[in-house]
Amino acid sequence: MTKKIILTIILICFVFFLFAPAFADEGMWTLDNPPITQLQSKYGFTPAAEWLEKVRLASVRFNDGGSGSFITSTGLVLTNHHVAVGQLQKMSSAEKDYVKDGFYAKTTSEEIKSPDLEINVLVSMENVTGIINKAIKDLPAEKALKARQASIARITKEKMDKTGLRADVVSLYYGGEYWLYGYKKYRDVRLVFAPEKQVAFFGGDPDNFTYPRYDLDFAIFRVYENDKPVKIENYFKVNPQGAKDGELIFIPGHPGSTKRLMTYAELEFLRDFVQPYRLEKYARTLSALEDYSKKGTEEARRAATMIFSLQNAYKAYLGRQQGLLDKKLMAKFKKEENNFKAKVAANPEFKKEAMSSWDVITKTVKLHEKEFNNLNFHTLQGGKLPGMGRFITQYVVEIKKPDKDRIEGYHESQLDEKKYYFLSPAPVYKDYEETLLADFLKHALKRLGPNDKFIKIALNGKSPDERAKELIQQTNLDDPKFRKALLEGGEEFVKKCGDPLIVLSWQLDPIRRESVKWSEDNLESVMTLNSEKINKIRFKIYGKSAYPDATFTLRLAYGKVAGYPMNGTLAPHKTTFYGLYDRYYSFDKRYPWSLPERYIQAKDKFDLSAPVDFVSTADIIGGNSGSPVINKDAEFVGVVFDGNIESLVGDFIYDDTANRAVSVHSGGIIEVLNKLYGAEDLVKEILNK
Amino acid sequence: MTKKIILTIILICFVFFLFAPAFADEGMWTLDNPPITQLQSKYGFTPAAEWLEKVRLASVRFNDGGSGSFITSTGLVLTNHHVAVGQLQKMSSAEKDYVKDGFYAKTTSEEIKSPDLEINVLVSMENVTGIINKAIKDLPAEKALKARQASIARITKEKMDKTGLRADVVSLYYGGEYWLYGYKKYRDVRLVFAPEKQVAFFGGDPDNFTYPRYDLDFAIFRVYENDKPVKIENYFKVNPQGAKDGELIFIPGHPGSTKRLMTYAELEFLRDFVQPYRLEKYARTLSALEDYSKKGTEEARRAATMIFSLQNAYKAYLGRQQGLLDKKLMAKFKKEENNFKAKVAANPEFKKEAMSSWDVITKTVKLHEKEFNNLNFHTLQGGKLPGMGRFITQYVVEIKKPDKDRIEGYHESQLDEKKYYFLSPAPVYKDYEETLLADFLKHALKRLGPNDKFIKIALNGKSPDERAKELIQQTNLDDPKFRKALLEGGEEFVKKCGDPLIVLSWQLDPIRRESVKWSEDNLESVMTLNSEKINKIRFKIYGKSAYPDATFTLRLAYGKVAGYPMNGTLAPHKTTFYGLYDRYYSFDKRYPWSLPERYIQAKDKFDLSAPVDFVSTADIIGGNSGSPVINKDAEFVGVVFDGNIESLVGDFIYDDTANRAVSVHSGGIIEVLNKLYGAEDLVKEILNK
Repeated sequence: MTKKIILTIILICFVFFLFAPAFADEGMWTLDNPPITQLQSKYGFTPAAEWLEKVRLASVRFNDGGSGSFITSTGLVLTNHHVAVGQLQKMSSAEKDYVKDGFYAKTTSEEIKSPDLEINVLVSMENVTGIINKAIKDLPAEKALKARQASIARITKEKMDKTGLRADVVSLYYGGEYWLYGYKKYRDVRLVFAPEKQVAFFGGDPDNFTYPRYDLDFAIFRVYENDKPVKIENYFKVNPQGAKDGELIFIPGHPGSTKRLMTYAELEFLRDFVQPYRLEKYARTLSALEDYSKKGTEEARRAATMIFSLQNAYKAYLGRQQGLLDKKLMAKFKKEENNFKAKVAANPEFKKEAMSSWDVITKTVKLHEKEFNNLNFHTLQGGKLPGMGRFITQYVVEIKKPDKDRIEGYHESQLDEKKYYFLSPAPVYKDYEETLLADFLKHALKRLGPNDKFIKIALNGKSPDERAKELIQQTNLDDPKFRKALLEGGEEFVKKCGDPLIVLSWQLDPIRRESVKWSEDNLESVMTLNSEKINKIRFKIYGKSAYPDATFTLRLAYGKVAGYPMNGTLAPHKTTFYGLYDRYYSFDKRYPWSLPERYIQAKDKFDLSAPVDFVSTADIIGGNSGSPVINKDAEFVGVVFDGNIESLVGDFIYDDTANRAVSVHSGGIIEVLNKLYGAEDLVKEILNK
Repeated sequence: MTKKIILTIILICFVFFLFAPAFADEGMWTLDNPPITQLQSKYGFTPAAEWLEKVRLASVRFNDGGSGSFITSTGLVLTNHHVAVGQLQKMSSAEKDYVKDGFYAKTTSEEIKSPDLEINVLVSMENVTGIINKAIKDLPAEKALKARQASIARITKEKMDKTGLRADVVSLYYGGEYWLYGYKKYRDVRLVFAPEKQVAFFGGDPDNFTYPRYDLDFAIFRVYENDKPVKIENYFKVNPQGAKDGELIFIPGHPGSTKRLMTYAELEFLRDFVQPYRLEKYARTLSALEDYSKKGTEEARRAATMIFSLQNAYKAYLGRQQGLLDKKLMAKFKKEENNFKAKVAANPEFKKEAMSSWDVITKTVKLHEKEFNNLNFHTLQGGKLPGMGRFITQYVVEIKKPDKDRIEGYHESQLDEKKYYFLSPAPVYKDYEETLLADFLKHALKRLGPNDKFIKIALNGKSPDERAKELIQQTNLDDPKFRKALLEGGEEFVKKCGDPLIVLSWQLDPIRRESVKWSEDNLESVMTLNSEKINKIRFKIYGKSAYPDATFTLRLAYGKVAGYPMNGTLAPHKTTFYGLYDRYYSFDKRYPWSLPERYIQAKDKFDLSAPVDFVSTADIIGGNSGSPVINKDAEFVGVVFDGNIESLVGDFIYDDTANRAVSVHSGGIIEVLNKLYGAEDLVKEILNK
């Protein structure tokens, strides 16, 4: 035991600095470049090409922000409850609250179609770095940006036209590589099962991003094509045994964004500008929505999902900010950048190519700081309706131009998705929209001041509350039929319609276009070009041993099931239903540790020692929510739903001492479906019995 | 919720600095000076004199290191399992292991007498500061020390002779006050109930000093006089409802030692010398005992209790050391001392009296540093037998002197307890003793080097292992009859007996006496006198609003039942048996999260939602183990057994944001006694039914 104690101390003190690069289960790897060496040396496993292909084709992206996977040949897709909740909210009404009460379709005829969900499967990947590089070769920054945009617009439209796929060009390693990804898209996605939010999100905001955890954060959809369930060849067979302590696991999914390859100047900018702005924004909007919620149970229902999102974001950003405010961590980033720069400086060719780029980026960041408020607030926001107004006013103008001359967002390959969301039949609540718009206007007024040109037009001499009220109460944009008419009516119809939000959008359009143009000319073009330069040299120095920062595209993370040192003791690798009830009773049944009636009634009727959640060392980040956890036989053993509190600096750094991905255990899912929800038929389908 | 979030941040950032002095539930108060003002202003409760007297008389001290309380008129005393375990170990044998298997006496005739337990009740308290001060008035440091010792020897002997009580003079506030405490002592203390160690210490070393926790760390004794259970007037009636979240509670008990009023120079000395030495010692001895344990199950049984103690001490000291290595915390201590010194400097009288004392203490500490190894290692240690050899050789010499001229430890008032332990019938295992002695000799050799005079005599040219073997194998000191003969035989008999450990004690005696004398003349006398000076001025400046550092004498702590921010979320105010089983299953039943068979069999047969442990803000420290938690009606609602990980800096500072005392809940005790141990009769007696 002494040896163990001493060893523990040595480990805590030194392992990170000495050994971490060699042994950490780090990385969100693209599927063209999986971490073969690491997997072979540490786990003795080599993924075959077929294995990788199956993993890619069984993994899905939820385009409203999350991941998931096919778990049967019959088109069942499993994801998180908190990924599904946006659609659950849109399916619900004052009469039927699927968020609160959950949902189970005993037969396919009872399944409910999601109003505006699109899920994607990555079916083709092509490296187009050469094409893009050729298009921008030797151009100055501004022209390079335009040329790059035009080239991407062309490539994606070609792909789309040829294959019918959704086509995206993805910039990896900050322009070190460009890839053309082709996605099969599904828009007929029907809800099969969702538990009650109170058990999916047991422990609420306090327990969010923590572990030990007891959340059944999963939901099940079924994908349809031509009004029939799709037949799926590549899916992850559910293994209800889950994964053992120490077992190798993989997490394929769509991590949203990391900043591990950013320059130090950009990290400082994040710390001093972006993060404080976001935290302020989340806190303000939360406060506004909490006041709104207090008006009644229906208001509380309408705002519940957004409140969850904002609390989630607030806690995540607070954790990140603690990382950025950690002087030791920042010194480590600085040191790493200096090491990299020293290598660049030591090679005349590299030096000539990229050495000045750090200074250019630093200067550009300083320029961004000066315009920070204008860039953030010169676009009308708050709720859904302002964005709809902006879309339609820009759309009718842009589609008249050749594709290559349009502003970003309105290229042919981008319009299909935009129109889909614009026409969504999901309910829009005017009182809720009014609350969010008023909140934005107040925030903009505070940051821009009353004499700003945007503020003058946006407020039109009124108070934010008055202005939000008149705009929202008088607009018809909440009506999908009106939006359809606008889309079909063209520029003249839109200009004449007189809808106050559209009128305001026309008025603000020049300011927004000016803002976007200034940003492209002075920031984006310069940043992209110089980031590309730095990251091309990074490749030449370090090879492709690194993985690119997350971009909400398919990645493969790996690791093992493992507890970790926590709070002076150890956190176990898994939790059980006993713990769910412990937390329920130990907080005297108080919200957010209350339980749905079903769980209170049934507590003696099922196996409380069954696993609920478990943790693994795999390197994930927001966007990975809903990702399957699979074993080396590509069987489904769980679904990722969170990182622990120690993982919140994961935007910038990965440390497998305590950074853990938190997942719902496959055994827990099967146990509750069978014993608590009477969903034996669904279980039979899932287990293929 | 936003307001809550913002409030939380504000609280975390500022509350400690701005408000802590006014609102924290801080302090280990002597019963002559309870925190009346704090209790009135914060909790609206004023303890009456009768309430305080009852609390004092119902609280007991376990002299081998812990606290406890009377819980019935029939002499039942409840304490921690880990306080009782020393006696359980001594009662056990290879055949009967009460530590592992627990114990329950269904009738009084089955109760087992503790071999050498003494428990004390504080029945009288007299302030003797004036007497001591008079005795040392105007004397130089060395003479003052002798005069103080002589004065204390006289006062305590008088008290003992007059009342038959155990009499101690206690120095409070580092000599700011001296009190004569009279204790009623009980030596016939019989074991009534103990659970299995595996559930008393569930989670073992990893979970030690952490929370949420699920330990049934309690044991019950019965006190006898004249072979009959004592009749007790003052006891804490057990309230099985426990205390509610937020309820005011009190913890009367015997905190061992704190260093909150120490000078900064002494804290640095702790950090740089004492703590590293202790950590090294604990780690070495643990390692030696773990090797010994591996020899067999009986060896493992013999060493188990000491291993627990050492692991416990190691973790506690590691936590303290983290506090001392925390630069912000140390800067805070420095600032506080500077503020105090500024006040002293501002008053000519105070300045003259005490200003130079800080420098004197700093110089004395530097002197101590130089002699640190000699002072620590020039006394033979390791196991029980070397101490027994030393005691008898010094005893036969010292008792021939007048009381006032004897060395410390051999005054009349101190001998009764010494002889009691010397004659203890508790088993002594030679192989175990040999392991500990060899470990000490190796450590001493490492620290002192082979040419040290102590080492030369102690090793006598042999290796530590050889020497320990010959000394322990050949000594008869393990035989209580031989010890009795030594005690009765006097100086001549002891000198002639030829027992190798006693021979060695004679040889080492001059070195030890020299070491003690040097320490008294150069360190203790100077430190005591100057600490007294500083702390007398502290009284004059701050009044008696402060509480003295802990001295293993009776204190009253207070606070409320309350969870706390932990690991990114909240720790609940209590835990339940559901959590016990969660941790058992979540670690796959692995030790130290395994459970006794009784708990595995019975898990569906009792109320798992019953409380196990709970936390409160009361300010406690090692020595408080076994202290009752009582409500304002002086009812027993639980028994303290630990502090959380955040409390480990409690030696130096108290911060009620997260510092919590962890206790077993009265409801949990009653539940298991009734439902798992078939101890219904005991429960009836406890609940007076």
